[in-house]
Amino acid sequence: MYKIAFDLNGNDNGIKAGLIASKIFIKNNSNFELFLIGNEKEIRTFFKNNIPANIKIIDNDLVASDKKNIRQSLHEKTSMNLAFDLLVEKKVDAILSSGDSGLYLSAATLKLKRLEGVSRAAFMPIMPTIKGEKFLLLDVGANIDTKAQYIYEWSLIAKEFAKYLLKKVNPRISLINIGTESYKGLEIIKEANLLLKENKNINYRGFIETRDILRATTDVALIDGYGGNLVLKSLEGAILSFKDLLKSKIKAKFIRKIGYLLLKGAFKDVAETLDYRNVGAAWVIGVNGVVIKSHGSSDDKAYLGALNQVKIALENDILNKVKKELNINE
Amino acid sequence: MYKIAFDLNGNDNGIKAGLIASKIFIKNNSNFELFLIGNEKEIRTFFKNNIPANIKIIDNDLVASDKKNIRQSLHEKTSMNLAFDLLVEKKVDAILSSGDSGLYLSAATLKLKRLEGVSRAAFMPIMPTIKGEKFLLLDVGANIDTKAQYIYEWSLIAKEFAKYLLKKVNPRISLINIGTESYKGLEIIKEANLLLKENKNINYRGFIETRDILRATTDVALIDGYGGNLVLKSLEGAILSFKDLLKSKIKAKFIRKIGYLLLKGAFKDVAETLDYRNVGAAWVIGVNGVVIKSHGSSDDKAYLGALNQVKIALENDILNKVKKELNINE
Repeated sequence: MYKIAFDLNGNDNGIKAGLIASKIFIKNNSNFELFLIGNEKEIRTFFKNNIPANIKIIDNDLVASDKKNIRQSLHEKTSMNLAFDLLVEKKVDAILSSGDSGLYLSAATLKLKRLEGVSRAAFMPIMPTIKGEKFLLLDVGANIDTKAQYIYEWSLIAKEFAKYLLKKVNPRISLINIGTESYKGLEIIKEANLLLKENKNINYRGFIETRDILRATTDVALIDGYGGNLVLKSLEGAILSFKDLLKSKIKAKFIRKIGYLLLKGAFKDVAETLDYRNVGAAWVIGVNGVVIKSHGSSDDKAYLGALNQVKIALENDILNKVKKELNINE
Repeated sequence: MYKIAFDLNGNDNGIKAGLIASKIFIKNNSNFELFLIGNEKEIRTFFKNNIPANIKIIDNDLVASDKKNIRQSLHEKTSMNLAFDLLVEKKVDAILSSGDSGLYLSAATLKLKRLEGVSRAAFMPIMPTIKGEKFLLLDVGANIDTKAQYIYEWSLIAKEFAKYLLKKVNPRISLINIGTESYKGLEIIKEANLLLKENKNINYRGFIETRDILRATTDVALIDGYGGNLVLKSLEGAILSFKDLLKSKIKAKFIRKIGYLLLKGAFKDVAETLDYRNVGAAWVIGVNGVVIKSHGSSDDKAYLGALNQVKIALENDILNKVKKELNINE
């Protein structure tokens, strides 16, 4: 039986989306147990007091009193800290939360510790492409000041995640740069390129530009945390903006509304292919635990996506495979 | 009579697109003279030997022999260098080229010199939004290592360009960051934020995230050169990828093709609103001259857009207004 602690608090729209996702997930996965941490009364009301056997409730609706004060927050009895405690005590195998990113990262690093030989943790979402395939993007903002060595270390971890999350035997690994010529770009990116080239155990493909990144040209896209955050939000923003523009132009004339009815299926296909709801979930990699972070405005589908990613990670024992890749003996 | 030197070489698809744009521009603007630098025979063939009165031909189809060797390239008799010479000698008022970005920037800095009080030149494209309005984005890659002071200086220059190119009396100026909280982001961005806040002569609005940047929330978006290049290519890539995806989903079924016919106008409106062809042109700001760079794969519409931007800059004497804003006395 795999156990996941799910910190329900921290979602801007309350805990309902998390509960809907939990109900569906538990129904489809009898080999999983969920520890739902949130307001017990609300949880009981949602399940009409008929709590499924593999759901445990932990009554706690505390969030950090001042998320900017990380030192203080780590000592508060918040639902997020409780989730980490369960993982540290090995009462669960993985955790999921929508709480503050900075706090989550700090708690993961301080409570679980970084893996041996890993200098920094990173945030790694799974991104959609127009071909239907997905890719892993990292770091998207855990680190402001990134060194070449970090990127090199992340490549080894991301490789293992890509094998199972993307079902790729030998995942293609690329480094995002502002040009594909070797003399272009930040010094740390040029250094990382040399480090990655030296490692014959990864399928390194060199530089890629973000212009082509949605065309499934790689399985893992590495970048510094500052650049990765800009890329993530630019891609997401452009696609959502484009959708809104198209919608407004279609609504502008009646005849177009009829055309829309005929094209509804095409729009649905597009929306499913480039669904950014899964992107709301990012892995916290480099720490000694299976830890995933969901966006603060996640809906039930986004949470279900996150839970299904955790399922793949646990059923394939990804954490131990990462440790093996990093030559960690325990 | 305003004079523009147009370096026709450097386009991946030859000089024809530049010639088509020149012909249209000259026809509509009798107060402009174009110095077309390229293969004279090709130019004459295009105009069927009937060269318009306000077009001068300069026979030169030389491009840099090794664009990575900047020192050497600056001394070659290339069409790009010739264009700069004409500007330095005040035989023309502005220049346009599709040549190599790095060379163009170096030539602009070394031959024209930077404006007094400006530490670095920057590339500044005019970007579309889904609302139809446009904004200026800078720097998109002239600088790999950006300092807070550069960004502050660019804000003063961009402000003057925005007044005329975007017709805004008091342009909104924003700083792109990976969050809107003051404690987030690169140190140089946080420092730039403080410098910009201190200047009461600009309409500074603080941080923006790239997620909202296509929604016309600002007139000028400032960022370091590395981040700006990633943002530019991510936005462009996402929109082009989305269009391709939509096209493929529409083609997938016959009934959808009929829907497409009814929606053709909507798609055309969308394409016109988010037309990235103008983005191919970026101003080189911070140097003592009116200098614009077109993308190496520009089509005639992209070139016409660039020429029309130059027209606005010259007719409104933007360069002198920039100098005044920077308190430069000549």
